[in-house]
Amino acid sequence: MPGRCRVAETLWGKGQPLDAAIHAFTVGDDPVVDLSLVPHDALGSAAHARMLAHVGLLAPEAATSLVAALHALHDEARAGRFTIRPEQEDGHTALEAALVERTGEAGKRIHLARSRNDQVLLALRLFMREELLALGARTAELAGTFLDFAEAHADLPLPGYTHLRRAMPSTFGLWGMAFAEGLLEELEALKGVWGRLDRCPLGAAAGFGVPLPIDREYVARLLGFSRVQRSPIDAQDSRGRHEAALLTWACSVAGTLEKWLWDVQLYSMDEFGFLALPDAFTTGSSIMPQKKNPDVVELARGRCRELRGLAHQVEAVAGGLPSSYHRDFQLLKRPTLQALTSAKALLEVLARLVPALKVNAEKARAACDDTLYAAHHAYALVAKGQPFRDAYREVGRQLNDGSFQPDRGALTATHLGGAGNLGLATAREELADARDWLTRTHAQQAEAAARVWAP
Amino acid sequence: MPGRCRVAETLWGKGQPLDAAIHAFTVGDDPVVDLSLVPHDALGSAAHARMLAHVGLLAPEAATSLVAALHALHDEARAGRFTIRPEQEDGHTALEAALVERTGEAGKRIHLARSRNDQVLLALRLFMREELLALGARTAELAGTFLDFAEAHADLPLPGYTHLRRAMPSTFGLWGMAFAEGLLEELEALKGVWGRLDRCPLGAAAGFGVPLPIDREYVARLLGFSRVQRSPIDAQDSRGRHEAALLTWACSVAGTLEKWLWDVQLYSMDEFGFLALPDAFTTGSSIMPQKKNPDVVELARGRCRELRGLAHQVEAVAGGLPSSYHRDFQLLKRPTLQALTSAKALLEVLARLVPALKVNAEKARAACDDTLYAAHHAYALVAKGQPFRDAYREVGRQLNDGSFQPDRGALTATHLGGAGNLGLATAREELADARDWLTRTHAQQAEAAARVWAP
Amino acid sequence: MPGRCRVAETLWGKGQPLDAAIHAFTVGDDPVVDLSLVPHDALGSAAHARMLAHVGLLAPEAATSLVAALHALHDEARAGRFTIRPEQEDGHTALEAALVERTGEAGKRIHLARSRNDQVLLALRLFMREELLALGARTAELAGTFLDFAEAHADLPLPGYTHLRRAMPSTFGLWGMAFAEGLLEELEALKGVWGRLDRCPLGAAAGFGVPLPIDREYVARLLGFSRVQRSPIDAQDSRGRHEAALLTWACSVAGTLEKWLWDVQLYSMDEFGFLALPDAFTTGSSIMPQKKNPDVVELARGRCRELRGLAHQVEAVAGGLPSSYHRDFQLLKRPTLQALTSAKALLEVLARLVPALKVNAEKARAACDDTLYAAHHAYALVAKGQPFRDAYREVGRQLNDGSFQPDRGALTATHLGGAGNLGLATAREELADARDWLTRTHAQQAEAAARVWAP
Amino acid sequence: MPGRCRVAETLWGKGQPLDAAIHAFTVGDDPVVDLSLVPHDALGSAAHARMLAHVGLLAPEAATSLVAALHALHDEARAGRFTIRPEQEDGHTALEAALVERTGEAGKRIHLARSRNDQVLLALRLFMREELLALGARTAELAGTFLDFAEAHADLPLPGYTHLRRAMPSTFGLWGMAFAEGLLEELEALKGVWGRLDRCPLGAAAGFGVPLPIDREYVARLLGFSRVQRSPIDAQDSRGRHEAALLTWACSVAGTLEKWLWDVQLYSMDEFGFLALPDAFTTGSSIMPQKKNPDVVELARGRCRELRGLAHQVEAVAGGLPSSYHRDFQLLKRPTLQALTSAKALLEVLARLVPALKVNAEKARAACDDTLYAAHHAYALVAKGQPFRDAYREVGRQLNDGSFQPDRGALTATHLGGAGNLGLATAREELADARDWLTRTHAQQAEAAARVWAP
Repeated sequence: MPGRCRVAETLWGKGQPLDAAIHAFTVGDDPVVDLSLVPHDALGSAAHARMLAHVGLLAPEAATSLVAALHALHDEARAGRFTIRPEQEDGHTALEAALVERTGEAGKRIHLARSRNDQVLLALRLFMREELLALGARTAELAGTFLDFAEAHADLPLPGYTHLRRAMPSTFGLWGMAFAEGLLEELEALKGVWGRLDRCPLGAAAGFGVPLPIDREYVARLLGFSRVQRSPIDAQDSRGRHEAALLTWACSVAGTLEKWLWDVQLYSMDEFGFLALPDAFTTGSSIMPQKKNPDVVELARGRCRELRGLAHQVEAVAGGLPSSYHRDFQLLKRPTLQALTSAKALLEVLARLVPALKVNAEKARAACDDTLYAAHHAYALVAKGQPFRDAYREVGRQLNDGSFQPDRGALTATHLGGAGNLGLATAREELADARDWLTRTHAQQAEAAARVWAP
Repeated sequence: MPGRCRVAETLWGKGQPLDAAIHAFTVGDDPVVDLSLVPHDALGSAAHARMLAHVGLLAPEAATSLVAALHALHDEARAGRFTIRPEQEDGHTALEAALVERTGEAGKRIHLARSRNDQVLLALRLFMREELLALGARTAELAGTFLDFAEAHADLPLPGYTHLRRAMPSTFGLWGMAFAEGLLEELEALKGVWGRLDRCPLGAAAGFGVPLPIDREYVARLLGFSRVQRSPIDAQDSRGRHEAALLTWACSVAGTLEKWLWDVQLYSMDEFGFLALPDAFTTGSSIMPQKKNPDVVELARGRCRELRGLAHQVEAVAGGLPSSYHRDFQLLKRPTLQALTSAKALLEVLARLVPALKVNAEKARAACDDTLYAAHHAYALVAKGQPFRDAYREVGRQLNDGSFQPDRGALTATHLGGAGNLGLATAREELADARDWLTRTHAQQAEAAARVWAP
Repeated sequence: MPGRCRVAETLWGKGQPLDAAIHAFTVGDDPVVDLSLVPHDALGSAAHARMLAHVGLLAPEAATSLVAALHALHDEARAGRFTIRPEQEDGHTALEAALVERTGEAGKRIHLARSRNDQVLLALRLFMREELLALGARTAELAGTFLDFAEAHADLPLPGYTHLRRAMPSTFGLWGMAFAEGLLEELEALKGVWGRLDRCPLGAAAGFGVPLPIDREYVARLLGFSRVQRSPIDAQDSRGRHEAALLTWACSVAGTLEKWLWDVQLYSMDEFGFLALPDAFTTGSSIMPQKKNPDVVELARGRCRELRGLAHQVEAVAGGLPSSYHRDFQLLKRPTLQALTSAKALLEVLARLVPALKVNAEKARAACDDTLYAAHHAYALVAKGQPFRDAYREVGRQLNDGSFQPDRGALTATHLGGAGNLGLATAREELADARDWLTRTHAQQAEAAARVWAP
Repeated sequence: MPGRCRVAETLWGKGQPLDAAIHAFTVGDDPVVDLSLVPHDALGSAAHARMLAHVGLLAPEAATSLVAALHALHDEARAGRFTIRPEQEDGHTALEAALVERTGEAGKRIHLARSRNDQVLLALRLFMREELLALGARTAELAGTFLDFAEAHADLPLPGYTHLRRAMPSTFGLWGMAFAEGLLEELEALKGVWGRLDRCPLGAAAGFGVPLPIDREYVARLLGFSRVQRSPIDAQDSRGRHEAALLTWACSVAGTLEKWLWDVQLYSMDEFGFLALPDAFTTGSSIMPQKKNPDVVELARGRCRELRGLAHQVEAVAGGLPSSYHRDFQLLKRPTLQALTSAKALLEVLARLVPALKVNAEKARAACDDTLYAAHHAYALVAKGQPFRDAYREVGRQLNDGSFQPDRGALTATHLGGAGNLGLATAREELADARDWLTRTHAQQAEAAARVWAP
């Protein structure tokens, strides 16, 4: 309802009447999108208040009153009971307004030695840290389901495809391990993204610091950051850079999942029949009574591609600008939030789908015909002394004249990672390490928050 | 509230209990996004009912009852009074449910000879046609403001920049004409997009037609389409293709606007001073009392880039699939709607900003120093017989030794499109033609709708 | 060999020594990429010379001499006998240098009343016009092969898939028509892209016109353009806009082809067996003697996605800039050329693949089981008076209890576009019209070139 | 010259004649692009030969002969003296052919227990490791130039811009530190990318391992990898994933550089005048004798955006596929190579541009008017007891009535990262650490190569 705009509610209002349509254009989706940021803004603001008191820029009792009010506002926001009115422009203004309402004079002192950009940056940083850990936890859980799947079906034969043509003997175990190991790589790479997010931007102000004796290391430690992001300009410049790092990481995860989803989509077709989707994961057709459609698989697959589009949106909006703050950055928030919400839903649904998949061992075994063993058989000839190129031609000849008869039993790969040596135990250890790191890091953040809220 | 899901509400339900979380994953944003499609679905459904009656597949009185109910539902949806419940999955199910509720037996006959994909396709096609005309109208209006600006400031000098360095004498008139002509190109290219949308998909059913004597040409004509999109498979295959065509057109428009916005952003800096933004288009800073920030310009510029990201999202989701329908396509709806909403807001705000810009003729004139005339002066030497390459060197020498003194007055470009011959009248004719086409086409659509709704 | 750079060869050199590494950075790929532009630059330059003579800015005999030399250079460039030396920076410089070498004084007059940007713009415009017509011709040829395929296999049954699940009865005819009709849409949409390219930019000079009495309409007519692109600034601003329009059109074509390629990739698997790829379109494996890999299909499919990446590259480079010329635009040339080369190769290979595909009618027929007719059978019940929703449930019951027995013969879709009414004749007419337009337009361009070269 | 194709040269040839055009389509750019991979393929092949000998699958003297021949081929390839003939399809075939030619029977044994995909994967992995370290070294060097710049101009005033409007007092020191710190973040994040690349894929064969007692840990150690990439399917699945990780990292670097380049582009305009570009970094105009164009800055800026397009190309080609190998992956090589080449050139040119920039201290100082100190002055009032919101309004009033007179000297930010406390020493330490890691890691790779080549 931009028509109802009141003048006094922006932090920079100087009394001019606002144009409702233009106000709506500048405000955009902020009143909705920012709801996700308010709890983080409350936490960051409380840390800022404590720091101001620490260096003597705020009376201790004012800090105490601010922290208590922010704690309450944080809890209300987490519980979905905080609202942002369009005329308040954004969540940061709404938070400051609520603070002034509840703490009076103290509330008017919270904005000392910081700017709104500062506030947004910190809230976004804290938000992205929480989201990255949440994505990591879900990724770890999903990796675990792939390991369980691989273990449960370790030796069940499955044709191995290359060029989408039957190529080599494989197993469901080998297949399941692939996605577990892909996700383990992402869980390690996650730490690289975390490293980017592990510097505290507070104190950058509008991008050039403040001429006040603030203690940036103090507030960084208080909030559980390893370090200060020293350069105030670079702090502003990291708008978009960090969102892109987070989303391209999520896209890499999705790249692995997309492959699995495509496999499932194919293997569950009648033409393959290796897998069956449980009814709970299928839907029907409005006109074809016989249909069971794999909508969950398709939508999950689509979300993997959607994520790439959202990452491009973030990159597009973030790029093409000089250094320091530009209002264009506001448009980074929606695609970031959409991408994170979508990625979490994707990971959760898959963590339920993997254990629910039904394997049709008979059909998979039947699809493993002798020709899959052609290369293996050539290796057997090599073991008897032939150069590989000659053995390759010999097998080709046998295939043509119908004399090809491989000894399937003798032909399992027993090297590390082969069908006969999946490396499950090592993978479980790596997953446990990744989970430890996530749990430990999450606990550190929770402790930091507790420190900030401590009376 | 997926927990409250009721079984009977999907069109394909066969009595199994639904998993709430999975239902939520498959439903996604549809209950919100589809609100934009319901009016179009109502219109398309009414045309379908009329066609069924026309070929004898539906009793005339059933058709009359359906059309009347759909007309009411259409009006309710336009007025924002139609809601889609999450357990209804999407707007098409909600519409059919409302229809059955209001018309009983007749409502259960509306889905004869079509599928939900058919219904979605037609609703999307009608939606995109309306949106394209709406974007076209706003683009034409904006083009008009550029022409007015060019006319009002036709002869005011402005430095012409290349490589972002002062280069040649230019005028505000020349500058304004550039964006008018860019938009005129888009208004012509719009017809190519319209051509894609001007074939009626109804009758494609699930992508393979129906074994019933439907009359696809009848319903196409009734709805104001020029032709039938004959191939039912291609009809399904156009999901994504048409959205991409629409959005890449909008991106091309935005590409022209982005340049203007960047110019305005620079020219309104104190360092240039050629333009001033009215207060209504600026905001303040939360800590710097002196600031007037060009947020509207920045957000508009950001939206130009955001559109590219949204187009990429559509392309990403639409691509990488075999022919025919896949549920992945559901994810096309949100970015399409976001892009269209954003593009319309962008065009509207700019149509207000262009006439509100204040030109500072004095500063612009002062920035036009003699060196801008260096190339022009070389041409003057050429006119006296020197080869151009020699004249170029001669002027270089004059610039170096300080003897350079161009005769500014004699150096206006009077060829078509030059500062002295902007071609305003021709541009106004072209714009009038474009508007005529838009108005005429819009009227045809309105007449078609009236035919469908006629009792 | 940047080390050998000579100073005098750039058009703007003033005698300073050049830094070899920096020169190499600025020159980039131009000496290679520009080879594609030189013939067009020669044609455009000749038209410019004729225009200069027409308005009296160049002596008739100088124009004659320039046109003759440019004609020879054009033919040499077309024959691959023109080279650009790195120290010449780009093809336009190389062309002017060759011209001066061959015509002496006249060559030094060719650059009067134009700038290098002007020259590049015109060469690119002419190049893109030629390429668009070439892509159109190949698209039309490919569309023809789809029509032939559809006609040759019109009534052969094929399962119709939705959600990648067998859904409805279809035919190879219906399948082939889908891609023909998709391409026919593109051939119509091509005219919208042509419209963008059908305005002559010459005379824009550096983006602000020239103070000389040039005749822009004369040269536009001479070169076969419908109109002048009046605004000199918009002419510069169309760098990137036109490339993007061309490439997004090619991406839309590729979007249709990608679906066909995915279908072929699946249908030619043993698991489906509906199609066989001829040996010429397959390759072998370095270790698996039994393999026949569908590399051509995969690479063609990959090129469809590659095109999207190349289009994004063009959009990325073109965007994010103020109006008028920026050197960033140089980076538009390589991806544009790569995309066009790749798209042409793709269309050519597919035009050979479509007729070479072998259909396995038996396997396809065997895959068409009774359940495909479930919806059709529900329609048959409707024809006897049941509401569709009740018929749908009845068929569901029959499927469950095994009593389902559809009358296949009675269930062919005979409406326009259905399996029994493909609309081949109309499609052939539309294709003939598209070809006519392409041939006619191509002939007009050839006539224009002949006019320019006429002694 | 596809017409000259000979049959025998592909590894999988079975004697059929090849279709020249189709061969050309499948071969694509490989004969050129693969030249960058041949040295790495030679190294990987030598390690493979050593491993085969280690486990007894190859006679020791055969291994010795292969290693020696591969070492020679490696050196020839590094020196640009190795060529790939089109009929050889790709570099891997060419290498094996050369090996057979030089070592006879031994050469025919090199392909035992691996596949071409294996070979490509390993060569690409080694290539990407080398390139990442090279990019890292150049990034570190560039970061050093920013630190030097910041130190050299530490206290020179510069207006700080937000929303591209003068906002706050800043310094050239503060400005230079921003980009140094941005690059330091990238140098840390680089390790996350390295972690992805630090697992050896050899032994994955076609994606399902081999039934031979190969020792994957041995060969991984030999080549200097930390670990084995166990899952053979995931090894194939990492095609594209790793390229994307590498390129998105490079894009993040470029995102920081783009901001600096835009700043330089603006600050070196006459309208700002804070910086001057040395002549070696500018070019001239073909028609405007007065122009000095900042082409190097523009092209560098363009390359930052070009990189995003190339990353999109990689993502597009890599995505949308089931697990395991597909020939589509071939199309990943060209954009990866182009992106790396372009990124290296960009970093090198900037490392020369930063120290060459000339600062105009006078103009920058003149642009720092009193209003920049408005927020600072409000803080000064706060220090005297006013709440910040009241101080903000007070300064607003002073600005309006002309009474505003800030005490500039007292208003420097002395907190960590502020203009008065840049943190140069810490940044230098961080850079030294990053360089140490790069040097150490590079040395490890060199030692591994020496081990492989050791007679």
